[in-house]
Amino acid sequence: MLAISITWVTSLTSNPIIPLLATATESDSAYIMAGVLISLIVIYLASIVGAEICARLNMPPVLGQLLGGLVVGISAFHLLVFPEGGGDSSNSLIINFLIATTGLSLDGAAIFQINSEVISVLAEIGVVILLFEIGLESDLKELLKVGPYSAIVALVGVAAPFFGGTLGLVYLFGIPTVPAIFAGAALTATSIGITAKVLAELQYLNRKEGQIIIGAAVLDDVLGIIILAIVASLAKTGEVELTNVVYLIISAVAFLVGAVLLGRLFNPYFVKIVDELRTRGQLLIPALIFAFALSYIATAIQLEAILGAFTAGLVLAETQKCQALKNQIIPIADILVPVFFVVVSAKTNIGVLNPFVPENREGLMIAVFLILIAIVGKVISGFTVFDQEETNRLAIGIGMIPRGEVGLVFAGIGSTTGVLSGSLDAAIIVMVILTTFLAPPLLSFVFQKPEQVSVKTKK
Amino acid sequence: MLAISITWVTSLTSNPIIPLLATATESDSAYIMAGVLISLIVIYLASIVGAEICARLNMPPVLGQLLGGLVVGISAFHLLVFPEGGGDSSNSLIINFLIATTGLSLDGAAIFQINSEVISVLAEIGVVILLFEIGLESDLKELLKVGPYSAIVALVGVAAPFFGGTLGLVYLFGIPTVPAIFAGAALTATSIGITAKVLAELQYLNRKEGQIIIGAAVLDDVLGIIILAIVASLAKTGEVELTNVVYLIISAVAFLVGAVLLGRLFNPYFVKIVDELRTRGQLLIPALIFAFALSYIATAIQLEAILGAFTAGLVLAETQKCQALKNQIIPIADILVPVFFVVVSAKTNIGVLNPFVPENREGLMIAVFLILIAIVGKVISGFTVFDQEETNRLAIGIGMIPRGEVGLVFAGIGSTTGVLSGSLDAAIIVMVILTTFLAPPLLSFVFQKPEQVSVKTKK
Repeated sequence: MLAISITWVTSLTSNPIIPLLATATESDSAYIMAGVLISLIVIYLASIVGAEICARLNMPPVLGQLLGGLVVGISAFHLLVFPEGGGDSSNSLIINFLIATTGLSLDGAAIFQINSEVISVLAEIGVVILLFEIGLESDLKELLKVGPYSAIVALVGVAAPFFGGTLGLVYLFGIPTVPAIFAGAALTATSIGITAKVLAELQYLNRKEGQIIIGAAVLDDVLGIIILAIVASLAKTGEVELTNVVYLIISAVAFLVGAVLLGRLFNPYFVKIVDELRTRGQLLIPALIFAFALSYIATAIQLEAILGAFTAGLVLAETQKCQALKNQIIPIADILVPVFFVVVSAKTNIGVLNPFVPENREGLMIAVFLILIAIVGKVISGFTVFDQEETNRLAIGIGMIPRGEVGLVFAGIGSTTGVLSGSLDAAIIVMVILTTFLAPPLLSFVFQKPEQVSVKTKK
Repeated sequence: MLAISITWVTSLTSNPIIPLLATATESDSAYIMAGVLISLIVIYLASIVGAEICARLNMPPVLGQLLGGLVVGISAFHLLVFPEGGGDSSNSLIINFLIATTGLSLDGAAIFQINSEVISVLAEIGVVILLFEIGLESDLKELLKVGPYSAIVALVGVAAPFFGGTLGLVYLFGIPTVPAIFAGAALTATSIGITAKVLAELQYLNRKEGQIIIGAAVLDDVLGIIILAIVASLAKTGEVELTNVVYLIISAVAFLVGAVLLGRLFNPYFVKIVDELRTRGQLLIPALIFAFALSYIATAIQLEAILGAFTAGLVLAETQKCQALKNQIIPIADILVPVFFVVVSAKTNIGVLNPFVPENREGLMIAVFLILIAIVGKVISGFTVFDQEETNRLAIGIGMIPRGEVGLVFAGIGSTTGVLSGSLDAAIIVMVILTTFLAPPLLSFVFQKPEQVSVKTKK
């Protein structure tokens, strides 16, 4: 009876088209879970140790999560490796640890595949939750109110690095158009989280320069997500067709505007429904159904899931449930978002930038070029502020330098879809890491005497 | 360049041992995510609609989540089907919807496999989080304090249905020993959540009967988890060896006692570490590392992951961080636990209990037998209270009737490992559903005049 009834093994092995995996045993399902548990432990340790070290050095914690991912990933200790990063089950230390500690003869290859797939999906859910949270923290009215200064800083700060980066990669380095556009797009979006945190620490958040920076960072985050959606879709079809671009811009704008407008109609019903519900998760579950539904629609019309999640956050930010929802999303983001950051950099083989290997020098040159464009493009944007009053325009430009979440999302999607070559992908990660590293000390330097400038610039 | 660099498709397709899947395209990774999103939407809709309908009928919400899972699963609408439940990609409505809405020619079979695997792992993470939360809500000191009444009610209430169920299945129905023990074990654990909620609604939580019931429910939850660990391990090795049983009892007790004792040593350091941390998730991430590590160790010594998670909760419940941790775990449990309940019953084909099909009658007979044993076994336990005072012994027994989480965990693990046949698995689910259904009205009936009895029984 027992021997007969053990027909189900894992969902993979029961499929007749994969006969080689059918040698796995029924206890695999427990070991798949064990593999996921140990992968999450490694991810969380890398995340918390990296984040805490950076916090103590007055660096943004996300930087530490990235560095932690590099340490446990394909670049260094091979604890967390993925098939697309060049790993296989025999060089995955987690699978070897699993086999050693459980003492069973496991089908390591099958468990490695499923484990990689599950962790990758958890990372993708993490970035969906992150963009949902960023959407919840954004304020549509503020976005519309911050006025012309922020808008021009945002537009110039997106256009300059995008065109500078793309054209430079095509004409100086001979990179094909699609990956060059992808890398150029990765240069656009300032990390609002990092910038806001640094400004708050310097007590500059409520001064004029601080307000312009935050407004522009919010706007270029939105622009960056639209660009990401367009570029990722271009990457999928593989061509830069004008009709395609127009279709994507129209569908991105229509999706964003349509979702926000329909969202305003829908918001009172959302609040009414949530108020009617009595069981656990009465706020979270409807909110996630909404966020996942918009994410699904965005995917279905060839945009990115994260655009849907961000829009859902923006819509729900306007309801009276926003604060309660933010409070409940925080713990969920706390456990899922680190998976994304650690996995993104664990998949990145930083070894392709080793300067002692001659064939790596092109990748290194690209990284240096991207960093220069990333800094110059944003500093230029600061000088567009057409204000008569004394304004620290350099500080505004420097405040826009740190790239973060959205840039990494580009790198992650670029490597997942195979658009970015290994060296270009690594160059983007290095650009994100270095701009994030450089901005806090530079900002402290240009903002060093806030009392003297604040007299004239204070509103 | 683009065509060359698109070598990674999904982690599955890049594996040379699965050549047939390599026909999938690079956009599959986006559609894997889309499939997971739509699956989660279906799960959340089933969960919230079911839970809310039950809440309005004064039934426990978990019952509604189970019924919701039956509706969307293999038993009815085939929205959420799994390979082990007899589904395949062609009869999964979600995969068909995905193909229809995205308009692309997808490798439905490959996406179905990965989707099933990811959702199953999410459900397993859900039950790990659930048991961690139950552990956090338990109080070791209370467990030791509730005294002899609760202990005897718990022991008799575990032993009577376990032996009654197992022996009856073997001798009346000719079921082999291992599945009979598994089904007997599934009859043991009272759902502490359901019972506590019903008692609170009847304002009976702080009366003597209420205290005995809660104490016994906590104890038999722990007994149930130990029995689950033992039985599931027996199921893995397939034999009932005495040395094996002794080894498992010793390792289960040693693990539980050892973890709690070492936990007390470790607790001050845990608090100290958490107090030192400054970055987001400073409480949750260390707590989950601890919970996942104990879950992993439990798996590695052939116990169940959930025993580790429960023990981690019990240990951390003794720290001063307990309340803060509980508050942060609630939203995480809110979004992950419903996945478990919906998936468990979505995998259950209730059709095997259709009375109009002659070959189903044995399964139905088993279900009726299990329900009788489940009720009689717990009612008997109530009459063991050796108190001289007037005590509503019938009410205590009836308060122990509802089975819930742990019983479903048995059903889930039983069907995953293939120990339970379809009819036995369905009979357990029906037993859980019916005991959960019956207890609230029966309790209202036996407790109908609390004022009259409370004079003598109040402490």
